[in-house]
Amino acid sequence: MRPLLALALLSTSFLPLLADDAKSASSNVPRAEYPKVHADGKVTFRLKAADAKKVQLQPGGSDNGLGAKAFDMDRGDDGNWTVTTPAAVPGFHYYWFVVDGAIVSDPGSETYFGWGRQCSGIEIPEKGVDFYDVKDVPHGEVRALWYHSKVTGKARRAMVYTPPGYDKGTDKYPVLYLQHGAGEDERGWTTQGKANFILDNLLAAKKAKPMIVVMDNGYADKVGQQPRGFDFTGFEAVLIEELIPKIDATYRTQADRDHRALAGLSMGGMQALQVGLKHLDTFATIGAFSAPPGNQFDVEKSYGGVFSDSAAFNKKVKLLWLGAGTAETRFADGLKSMHTALDKKGVKHATFESDGTAHEWQTWRRSLHDFAPRLFQE
Amino acid sequence: MRPLLALALLSTSFLPLLADDAKSASSNVPRAEYPKVHADGKVTFRLKAADAKKVQLQPGGSDNGLGAKAFDMDRGDDGNWTVTTPAAVPGFHYYWFVVDGAIVSDPGSETYFGWGRQCSGIEIPEKGVDFYDVKDVPHGEVRALWYHSKVTGKARRAMVYTPPGYDKGTDKYPVLYLQHGAGEDERGWTTQGKANFILDNLLAAKKAKPMIVVMDNGYADKVGQQPRGFDFTGFEAVLIEELIPKIDATYRTQADRDHRALAGLSMGGMQALQVGLKHLDTFATIGAFSAPPGNQFDVEKSYGGVFSDSAAFNKKVKLLWLGAGTAETRFADGLKSMHTALDKKGVKHATFESDGTAHEWQTWRRSLHDFAPRLFQE
Repeated sequence: MRPLLALALLSTSFLPLLADDAKSASSNVPRAEYPKVHADGKVTFRLKAADAKKVQLQPGGSDNGLGAKAFDMDRGDDGNWTVTTPAAVPGFHYYWFVVDGAIVSDPGSETYFGWGRQCSGIEIPEKGVDFYDVKDVPHGEVRALWYHSKVTGKARRAMVYTPPGYDKGTDKYPVLYLQHGAGEDERGWTTQGKANFILDNLLAAKKAKPMIVVMDNGYADKVGQQPRGFDFTGFEAVLIEELIPKIDATYRTQADRDHRALAGLSMGGMQALQVGLKHLDTFATIGAFSAPPGNQFDVEKSYGGVFSDSAAFNKKVKLLWLGAGTAETRFADGLKSMHTALDKKGVKHATFESDGTAHEWQTWRRSLHDFAPRLFQE
Repeated sequence: MRPLLALALLSTSFLPLLADDAKSASSNVPRAEYPKVHADGKVTFRLKAADAKKVQLQPGGSDNGLGAKAFDMDRGDDGNWTVTTPAAVPGFHYYWFVVDGAIVSDPGSETYFGWGRQCSGIEIPEKGVDFYDVKDVPHGEVRALWYHSKVTGKARRAMVYTPPGYDKGTDKYPVLYLQHGAGEDERGWTTQGKANFILDNLLAAKKAKPMIVVMDNGYADKVGQQPRGFDFTGFEAVLIEELIPKIDATYRTQADRDHRALAGLSMGGMQALQVGLKHLDTFATIGAFSAPPGNQFDVEKSYGGVFSDSAAFNKKVKLLWLGAGTAETRFADGLKSMHTALDKKGVKHATFESDGTAHEWQTWRRSLHDFAPRLFQE
């Protein structure tokens, strides 16, 4: 079949034909019927695999809102395998299928870079919650900014949110540097996290100060350096020596520490703490989403002993923000123990708990929604 | 395993260990070894599917540079299935695997929206050709612009290339509206096509005029309208009534027909011809990449008879550009017949042939590289 004809047919197929209360997930590609989300939060997945012996749905991660274990799918007479899960936790969940041992994406899903590859993902609406929806309010732009890094010897891409009206105005803006988690990349905060819509909506409601948000790739191996897990020296060099000067040279920024924040989720939160607390002449605000160090935290010694003189710390730092989901026990416990130690030491900080969510994007959307309005208040 | 630990391990695995002349494809996700491209253009694909009975590599489309037919893959003792294809045509090729009847993406590949879903894709370098590489030259930005469409009743996203220096200057720029093909979306021209790097490189070499390039989604169903293949009435209304006014209100544009072009590939080229030639008060330049109408073309009657008065057409239109790849016979033949008819009628136009390439992105990269320098010359 000729490609144009095939595509013409394709473009009119896969129309949703849903007889019940279920809706095709908003995370699907256009016109893909499955997966679909039922009114009660259950999810039905489907994959055509006519000749497969075994097909499973695998949620991504041990505390995924779809559950932890793989679901066996059932084969129908038409070669489609289906499964309906118990009610899922609201938010965004990575998943994939396992077809006779092969880890594969769902052709019906848009793809989302996580787990070091392009994964399927499903969006489960949260009833009554619309702070990350795309609404008919003024929208900022998300810009792909390419820059050349001498540190890594490679071209890199950062995503940059500029607030509504940026192009028409002459104001200078504060900047939030906002990092993704391990296995994700610079696309995560907007594609999965909807950070741009969260900011758009906060700004429309005048609940946050207009700001630029810079989302870089958190992986940066120095020239000749082999990739190592959680070694942030390359990223630190890129951020301090290359990215911040590039951003300040490219955009109308308020280029001083009072108007610069560093935050991130999971690995990005570790970076915010490790790199940010080391560079308090660069950042006055630090946010760690689902990244408290837990039992390893020593209020006197951790992070170069930055908390040991709490008076000096409190004078210098405008905001230290720590958050976690209540369902990600390790991080929730880490948050509590760090909070207790900081309180005892007299280190000012803010904490946030996301009720019922785990190490997932709903925790981080809510974290940003709590964190952003606190930023850059004089 | 806890997610952070799993991801830490993940981040240091999959390091390329290539003993021969082959290199991991630039279209792979970071650290994925396969697919890999050999010096002679052969490609080795690999997928782990321990329990599968049959695994095939399927090139996307009948004139794909990997070939047309599915390749059977061979199972190794480790559960990995591999195949090495004959030398591939340079450029970008969609592909997927078929695992016991399931159409699935390659976890090693970045994903590319085509064929109505997220597909795998492989980049085959063309020797001595670097016009679409990311080089150390000033880069424009690619901006995601969200806007609300009354025509479709939905939020839409257009990708907007602004040339290097846009933010710092006060100049106004001409605008090229550049559309993707069927089954693709507004991301195609930059992700697959590398349009931004093509423009960056042309501008650095002073071979093109600085311009804004707007890449919208070509699918637009009016409120209440069911999707229909190649019905462009919704897109026409969005483009003329909503997108162009939005672009002219948002960016520093030269907002007149002389400084506005409409072009596209395949379905996008059909849109450029059908919509553009109908709106010559809006566009002075039209470019159709791999979209000539072939035998149906009637120089007197087609496109509302716009060519019937060639003198008037020549006076009004600054550039009509038509191109195709020599290996996409249907379109190459269509190009020749349209060219002959237009010549006979005395209608000025430019033609372009991409040597040895088919209905694929290499044809369209080369088309843009030929087309863009001709634009907005006074």
